[in-house]
Amino acid sequence: MKTKFDEELFLTTKTGRELYHKYAENLPIIDYHCHLQPVEIYENREFEDLGEMWLSGDHYKWRAMRTFGIDEKYITGDSSYHEKYLAFARIIPYLIGNPIYVWCALELKRYFDIEEPLSAENAEEVYQQTKEIIRRKHITRRWCMEHSRVKLVSTTEDPTDDLKYHIALKKEKMDTRVITAFRPDKAMFLEREDFPDYLNRLSQVSGVKIESFDSMLDALEIRLQFFRNATGTTVSDDGIPHFTWVDYSDAEIRDIFDKARKNWPLTQREVDQYQSAFLYEMGRRYCRNGYVMQLHIGTYLDANTTGVARVGQSTGFDCTDDQCAVTSVGELLNRLTIAGELPKTILYPLDGTKIETWAVLAAGFCGSDTKAKVQLGAPWWFNDQVYGIRRQFESCANLYPVSLSVGMLTDSRSFLSYPRHELYRRVLCDYFGDLVERGEYFSGEETLKQIIEDICFNNVNEFFGFHVEQQ
Amino acid sequence: MKTKFDEELFLTTKTGRELYHKYAENLPIIDYHCHLQPVEIYENREFEDLGEMWLSGDHYKWRAMRTFGIDEKYITGDSSYHEKYLAFARIIPYLIGNPIYVWCALELKRYFDIEEPLSAENAEEVYQQTKEIIRRKHITRRWCMEHSRVKLVSTTEDPTDDLKYHIALKKEKMDTRVITAFRPDKAMFLEREDFPDYLNRLSQVSGVKIESFDSMLDALEIRLQFFRNATGTTVSDDGIPHFTWVDYSDAEIRDIFDKARKNWPLTQREVDQYQSAFLYEMGRRYCRNGYVMQLHIGTYLDANTTGVARVGQSTGFDCTDDQCAVTSVGELLNRLTIAGELPKTILYPLDGTKIETWAVLAAGFCGSDTKAKVQLGAPWWFNDQVYGIRRQFESCANLYPVSLSVGMLTDSRSFLSYPRHELYRRVLCDYFGDLVERGEYFSGEETLKQIIEDICFNNVNEFFGFHVEQQ
Amino acid sequence: MKTKFDEELFLTTKTGRELYHKYAENLPIIDYHCHLQPVEIYENREFEDLGEMWLSGDHYKWRAMRTFGIDEKYITGDSSYHEKYLAFARIIPYLIGNPIYVWCALELKRYFDIEEPLSAENAEEVYQQTKEIIRRKHITRRWCMEHSRVKLVSTTEDPTDDLKYHIALKKEKMDTRVITAFRPDKAMFLEREDFPDYLNRLSQVSGVKIESFDSMLDALEIRLQFFRNATGTTVSDDGIPHFTWVDYSDAEIRDIFDKARKNWPLTQREVDQYQSAFLYEMGRRYCRNGYVMQLHIGTYLDANTTGVARVGQSTGFDCTDDQCAVTSVGELLNRLTIAGELPKTILYPLDGTKIETWAVLAAGFCGSDTKAKVQLGAPWWFNDQVYGIRRQFESCANLYPVSLSVGMLTDSRSFLSYPRHELYRRVLCDYFGDLVERGEYFSGEETLKQIIEDICFNNVNEFFGFHVEQQ
Repeated sequence: MKTKFDEELFLTTKTGRELYHKYAENLPIIDYHCHLQPVEIYENREFEDLGEMWLSGDHYKWRAMRTFGIDEKYITGDSSYHEKYLAFARIIPYLIGNPIYVWCALELKRYFDIEEPLSAENAEEVYQQTKEIIRRKHITRRWCMEHSRVKLVSTTEDPTDDLKYHIALKKEKMDTRVITAFRPDKAMFLEREDFPDYLNRLSQVSGVKIESFDSMLDALEIRLQFFRNATGTTVSDDGIPHFTWVDYSDAEIRDIFDKARKNWPLTQREVDQYQSAFLYEMGRRYCRNGYVMQLHIGTYLDANTTGVARVGQSTGFDCTDDQCAVTSVGELLNRLTIAGELPKTILYPLDGTKIETWAVLAAGFCGSDTKAKVQLGAPWWFNDQVYGIRRQFESCANLYPVSLSVGMLTDSRSFLSYPRHELYRRVLCDYFGDLVERGEYFSGEETLKQIIEDICFNNVNEFFGFHVEQQ
Repeated sequence: MKTKFDEELFLTTKTGRELYHKYAENLPIIDYHCHLQPVEIYENREFEDLGEMWLSGDHYKWRAMRTFGIDEKYITGDSSYHEKYLAFARIIPYLIGNPIYVWCALELKRYFDIEEPLSAENAEEVYQQTKEIIRRKHITRRWCMEHSRVKLVSTTEDPTDDLKYHIALKKEKMDTRVITAFRPDKAMFLEREDFPDYLNRLSQVSGVKIESFDSMLDALEIRLQFFRNATGTTVSDDGIPHFTWVDYSDAEIRDIFDKARKNWPLTQREVDQYQSAFLYEMGRRYCRNGYVMQLHIGTYLDANTTGVARVGQSTGFDCTDDQCAVTSVGELLNRLTIAGELPKTILYPLDGTKIETWAVLAAGFCGSDTKAKVQLGAPWWFNDQVYGIRRQFESCANLYPVSLSVGMLTDSRSFLSYPRHELYRRVLCDYFGDLVERGEYFSGEETLKQIIEDICFNNVNEFFGFHVEQQ
Repeated sequence: MKTKFDEELFLTTKTGRELYHKYAENLPIIDYHCHLQPVEIYENREFEDLGEMWLSGDHYKWRAMRTFGIDEKYITGDSSYHEKYLAFARIIPYLIGNPIYVWCALELKRYFDIEEPLSAENAEEVYQQTKEIIRRKHITRRWCMEHSRVKLVSTTEDPTDDLKYHIALKKEKMDTRVITAFRPDKAMFLEREDFPDYLNRLSQVSGVKIESFDSMLDALEIRLQFFRNATGTTVSDDGIPHFTWVDYSDAEIRDIFDKARKNWPLTQREVDQYQSAFLYEMGRRYCRNGYVMQLHIGTYLDANTTGVARVGQSTGFDCTDDQCAVTSVGELLNRLTIAGELPKTILYPLDGTKIETWAVLAAGFCGSDTKAKVQLGAPWWFNDQVYGIRRQFESCANLYPVSLSVGMLTDSRSFLSYPRHELYRRVLCDYFGDLVERGEYFSGEETLKQIIEDICFNNVNEFFGFHVEQQ
C-alpha cells in the first residue's frame, strides 16, 4: 500500500493524467476571493514555523481537532505553535477521507518537498526540517504566493476600511497583484446591536450624513467607487445567512430602518423585508459600477453560541442552513432583471446537497448580453473538497455549461492554501478523462486544452475584467 | 483521445456491454409522455433542415445558448434556421458534460450516420450534408418515429381540446399509435386571470353549465371520457408547481371557487385548499375511469418574468422549486387510499436531489391489488441525463424495486429525441453490469434479460394497458 | 455472468480486498441498537423455518412484497410461513439493486452455506434444505448471535417496562451480553389520546405521583436509573418524527402539560414547545446519568393511515419527512451546551439526501472534553444499504473524521441480520481501498488496520463504556 505522496493523486484514467500534466498543471493562479490580511502581505514577515503556517487562523483544522477531543489550549489557546503543531500532527493519520489530509500532504510536498506521511512518529522531525527550510529559503507571505504562481489575489474588506495596506501595496514590486472585495454585510445585519455604531463609522468615512436607508446606500456607493479607484477591483461579496424574499414598500423600509437605528426590536418579517431591499439596492449599484455580485448563501452562523463566546466568531462554530429557498434568491435576480440592472452574478450556496437547483436557477437568468451572466461559484467552504467538487462537476455540467465556469478560489485565511487550485484542477481533469473514456465527449484534445485553460484561467480573467497576462 | 462517436458509449463493463447489445438495443419504444404537436404528426411535413429539427422548439438548447451570451435573435428571434443552427453548432464543443452534447451526437449518428464531432469548423458541411439526406430520404415527422421503432406516443392536451388531429390520425396507416394525455392544469390554476374564460370554454365543449366546483368536475369527467373514447388513452397528467396540502371543507371550496370565477384575490391558503381539493377529486375520477395519474411535482414556473414576457412561457425561464414537501403529496395519496379510489400513480418530482424521499413515499402506498401501484417516473426534465438517471437507479433501487419501473419517456417537443431511450437503456445496462461485477447480483443472464425487457417495454405496456405488440 | 455468491462482494480494488480480509472480516460485533424482543432471547426457541426467520417481523420485506402487488394474506396475513416464504422467494430475483437481495444472499451463505441464487425454481428445495439444517444444528435465537460473534446487543424498551427478561438473562450463561436502550417516546407524544394513560402507568412503575411536567421528568429519571442498574446500560434513544424548535417558558409548558393530561386539543406551536422542552430536559438527564443520547430524526410516521389501520404501526407504512430543519436540532444542542449538560450524542437523520448538513452540525458541537462528543450514527433505516453507507462515507468523511465513528448497528427485528455488519465493513474497506489507490491516503497499512478496528469495534466500546473484550 502507498506510503508516499503520489503525483498521480486523483487521476484515475490515462486521459485524465494526460490532460492534467499537459494542460492544467502549469497554469498560473488567479485567486479572486480569499480572506488574507493585507497587512500580512504588506509586512511580509517570514513564518515562525509550520505551526504558525497551519494553525494560526485555520478554522477547518480547529474544528477537526475538537472532534478528537483535544483541549482547546492546543487549538486556539495559549500553547506555543510548536505544541499546537504536535497536537495536530498526531491526528493527521486519522483524517482519512478528509480534505485536511490531502491539503496538508499537498502543502508539505509543494512548499517543502516532503513526501512521507506526517504522523506522531515523525512530527518533531518534520517540524525541525520545515523550520530549517523556512529559515534557509526565507519563506514569507509573498514567497508562498509567488512560489505558487499566483498572479492576483482579492482579499475581502468592509466598506469602512481605509485600504491603507492595499494602497501601499500598489507601490511594491510584486508578481502578485492584490485587490479587495467590497463586503457590506454589516449594513445588512440591521438587527444587530452594533448597527447604529456601524452607520456612524460608515457616515464618517464616506462623508455622507446617514439619516435614511437611501443615504446609507449613497454612502455605500461612494465607498464602492473608492474601492474601485483604490485597488482597481470589480469584486463584491455578500454573505447571506438565511434569506427569505419578502415584498416591501419604501415606507416600510423607512420605518424599519428608523427602528434599527434606535436598536428597537424587529420582527423576522421586517428583517426579511430589509434584507430583500438591501440586496436589491446593492445589486443595482454593483451593476451601475461594473462590479460582479458574489452571493454566499445559506450559512447557519454561530450555531454553538458557547463556542463563539469562548473563542470568537468564525472559529469553527458555524454550520450549514438547509432551509434557504431557491425562490428567494430567484426573486432577487428577477427584480434586478426587471429593473435592467442585474450585474454579473456568482452564486455560492453552502448547502451543497441541493447544488443542482441553484445551477438551474443561474441558467434561467442568463441573457443575450454577457457570457455566463449568472453562474455557480466554486464549491464553497464545507464543499471545497474532492467529493463536493466532483459532485458539482457531475451534477451541474448537466444543467449549466461547466466550460463557462470561472473556476477555483481558495476563500482561505492561509498563505499555504494554493494547492487547493491544484486539487481542483486534478479533479477537473479526472472528470473530463472519465467523460472521454466513456465516450461522452469526443471533440478532441485541442478543444479540451482550450476548455481547461478557460476554466482554470481565462474565464475568471475575462469575467471580472482583470486583464492578467498568462505569459 | 476519442474523436468519433463510440458505440460503447456509457458502457464501462463487459457485462454492461453484453446486456445492452444483446437485450436492450433492439427493443421497440413506447413513448408514453411527450409534447409533440398532433397537427405535425398529421401533416407529416418533411423537415426544412437540421436547424428546424433542433431549434424550432427545444428550450434545453435555447437555455444553453443563453448561458453563452448568444443574442436572442439567433435563439428564438427572427434569424433563419440556418443561422440559428450555425450559432448553436459553435457552442457544441463547449457543452462537455451536458446532455445536449450527447443527445446531438446520438441524433447525428442515428438519423444521419454522422460520427464526427460537430463544431464551428464543420458546421456548414454538416448542415449541407444533413439537408441533402433529409431531402433524399424524405425525412418527415413520422419517418423519425418509425425509424426509431416507436410503437406508441402519447401527446398532451387540455381537456377543452377537440382532438381533431388525433381522431384523423386513427384513420391513417401508421406503425406508431398516437394517443394523448389529459392535462387539466388550467382548471387548477384558479388564481390566474384567465380562469373564468377557461371555465366558459370548458362549459362549451362539455355541454355542462359550470356554476360550481362540482359542475366543473362533472365537465372535466365528461372530457376525460371523451379523451378515452376518442384515442383509447389511459394517460392523465397534472403539473404541480408548488403544492402544500391544506385541509378544506366543501363550504370553503364553494366560497373559493366563487371568488375565483370573479377574479377576486385569493390568499395563499385558499389557493392551497383549492389545489388540494382539485387534485383529490381528479384522482378519484382517474381511478373510476381507469386512468393512470401522473403527477409532475415542484416546478418554479416563470422564474425570470422578463424572459417570459419577451419570449413566452416554457421557453427556458422555468427553474426547480426546492420546497415542495413530500408530506403534502403523501396526504393526497393517503386521502385517496382512504376513499378506496387511489388510481395507479406515477410521481415525477423535479427536485432530483431529494428523489429518495419520493421513492420511499411511493412504496408506502403500494397495496395488494396492483403491481407497482404508486411508482417513481423516469428522471424528469432537468434530471433527464446520465447523472440524474444513474442517481435514480443507484439511490432508488434500494427503496423501490427498479425492476417494476415503467421506464423511459422523452417528455419532448422534438421528433429527434428518441435516442434518449437509447441513453437510458445504456445507463441501465451499465448499472446492472456494475451490480453483477461487484457481486451484488447473481441471479443470472435469463433473469437480467427479463428485467431489462420489462423495464424497457413490458411494464409500461401492462401498467397503462396499451396492449402493444413487441414483435 | 456470476451465478453464485461471491466472497469478494463489493470489493472492487486489491487494497480494499486485502483490508477487508486481513483486518475487518473477523472482528466481533457490538450491536448497540436493535429491536429484538428480550423474551425471544430468553426463551431461545428453535426457528420453525426460513419463513419465520425472514417474514415474521421484517417490514422491509413486507414493503417490497406490496410493491409487487402480492396479496396481504401472504405478507402479514393468515398464510403459513411456508406459503409466505414461497411468495417472497419468487420476487427475490427481481430485487436487483435492493438491499434485501444482498441481505438474503448473505444470510443464506453465512447461516446455511447456500451459494446459489434463490428463485421460484429452487424455493421449495431451499426451504426444505434450510429447515433440515435448522433442526440438525438446533438453530435458535442465541445460536444466530453466537454464530455471528455478537458480543453485546442493546434492545429498546419503554421506561415503564419491568425488564424482567433482561434481569433473567443476566443469570444465563451466554457469549452475548444483553442490555436495553431507554426510549421515552410515549412521554413526548403528548398530543396522542393515550398520553394520560401512559402517565398513569409511568406513575405506577416509578412510584412518583405525576402532576406536572417536572414530576413526570422525575419519574422518567427514576426509570433511567433503574434501566442502568438493571442492565448496566448507557444507551438512550429518542425518535423525533418532525421537530421544530420553539422557545418556551415554564408557565407555557405547565399549561400545555395540563391540557394534554385532559386530552384537550393542542396547537402545533404548543406541541413544538413541549417537544423542545422535553428533549432539552431529557438531554440534561442523560448527561447527568452518564447516558449517550441517540436522536432518530425526521420520520413521516403512518403516512398511509389505511395500511396502519389494517396491519398496524411499524409494518411498512412509514416514510421519510423532508422538512426537518438542521437548525432545530442545532438549537437543542446549543441550549444543552449552554447549560453545560450536553451528553454524548449520536444523530441519525432519516433524510439521507441531506446527511452532510448534519455532519457539519455534529462537528460544530464537539468540544475539548470528549472524543467525538456529537457524531453521526450509521446510515439509518432506508439508508442502511450500499448506496447510503457509501454516500455517508464519501460525503461526510470530508466534514467529520470517519475514523471516530462508532460504526454499524442493525436496528433490526431479526436475529439473522448480523451480516449487515459484514456489508458495512466491506463497503468501508472498499472506500478506503479507493482512497489509497487514488493517492488520497498513504499513511500505511498499520494505521489503516487501527482505523478499521476502531470503527468496527473499539470506538463504540469506548464511547458507550461497554468494556467488551475483543479476544
